[in-house]
Amino acid sequence: MPIVHIHMFEGRSVDQKRRLVESVTDAIVSSVDAKPDSVHIVIHDMARHDYGEGGVLASED
Amino acid sequence: MPIVHIHMFEGRSVDQKRRLVESVTDAIVSSVDAKPDSVHIVIHDMARHDYGEGGVLASED
Amino acid sequence: MPIVHIHMFEGRSVDQKRRLVESVTDAIVSSVDAKPDSVHIVIHDMARHDYGEGGVLASED
Amino acid sequence: MPIVHIHMFEGRSVDQKRRLVESVTDAIVSSVDAKPDSVHIVIHDMARHDYGEGGVLASED
Amino acid sequence: MPIVHIHMFEGRSVDQKRRLVESVTDAIVSSVDAKPDSVHIVIHDMARHDYGEGGVLASED
Amino acid sequence: MPIVHIHMFEGRSVDQKRRLVESVTDAIVSSVDAKPDSVHIVIHDMARHDYGEGGVLASED
Repeated sequence: MPIVHIHMFEGRSVDQKRRLVESVTDAIVSSVDAKPDSVHIVIHDMARHDYGEGGVLASED
Repeated sequence: MPIVHIHMFEGRSVDQKRRLVESVTDAIVSSVDAKPDSVHIVIHDMARHDYGEGGVLASED
Repeated sequence: MPIVHIHMFEGRSVDQKRRLVESVTDAIVSSVDAKPDSVHIVIHDMARHDYGEGGVLASED
Repeated sequence: MPIVHIHMFEGRSVDQKRRLVESVTDAIVSSVDAKPDSVHIVIHDMARHDYGEGGVLASED
Repeated sequence: MPIVHIHMFEGRSVDQKRRLVESVTDAIVSSVDAKPDSVHIVIHDMARHDYGEGGVLASED
Repeated sequence: MPIVHIHMFEGRSVDQKRRLVESVTDAIVSSVDAKPDSVHIVIHDMARHDYGEGGVLASED
């Protein structure tokens, strides 16, 4: 039943997302003893002007 | 004050979302005794290549 | 694959949560044509001093 | 380490988002004694047909 | 309609949370032209062993 | 800048959470080319009566 939300900058390919979902699922299964089928992952792309750190948008850096 | 986030595959019509918001609000109001006006719902569409289950992207199935 | 997060004030009984999960699942299934088994719901209890509206904590009202 | 998610209607300019990230970071730093660099903010735009209050989509109002 | 989720380490007082909600609401209202009453803020406390950066739990630092 | 929220049943030890944060960070770094220090992970424990699938609370199963 782990439910995972990953927020990251847009621009990753579907192939990178495929590897992301596979490897994060493996990481969860091996570390907290969950079944692979119970791991649900939602990927949220974000634009650089929708993320700020230290009070500054990433698009300004 | 219930705040609800619903993540689901993109492709639903505005009419389906209208029914979704109406019926989920009714369900919350009747089950946990909240006022209709206090129920806030955010719908998040996701692409099939942004969702994974069992280590596999939904777009691969 | 709908994933639902519901944030509401703490204090509801397990019985109310049982009815909440049942009725919200029914509402989603009937409005956006999802399978019941694909609906995942996470309930997040919050204290009244962890929620603010109009700049004021709910515990102050 | 504060992590902040802000969901609001789409249509704000990058300049408004720049001010949003700057002023929300300042507000957090001054009220809960966090370091500016530790404040991470994700902005989520939403369409008016993806938000409902009182059982009604905002696009219907 | 801005909906805000703030995740931060547990340990802040109710008074700090009161100031947090007031100042973050002000920051949003002045930067993106929202009405104060439309700003909803949920505060999520987290333990130091429930947050990781750079692969390390904050409780280990 | 990946920000990750993991919701899972309560009961895992701090040691399991340490391995979870380490291995999920590695998985993200290797699959989408992010720097380890940019990966932020929040773990959310949930009770079995706060999670439902198929309209039924996990605590009822």
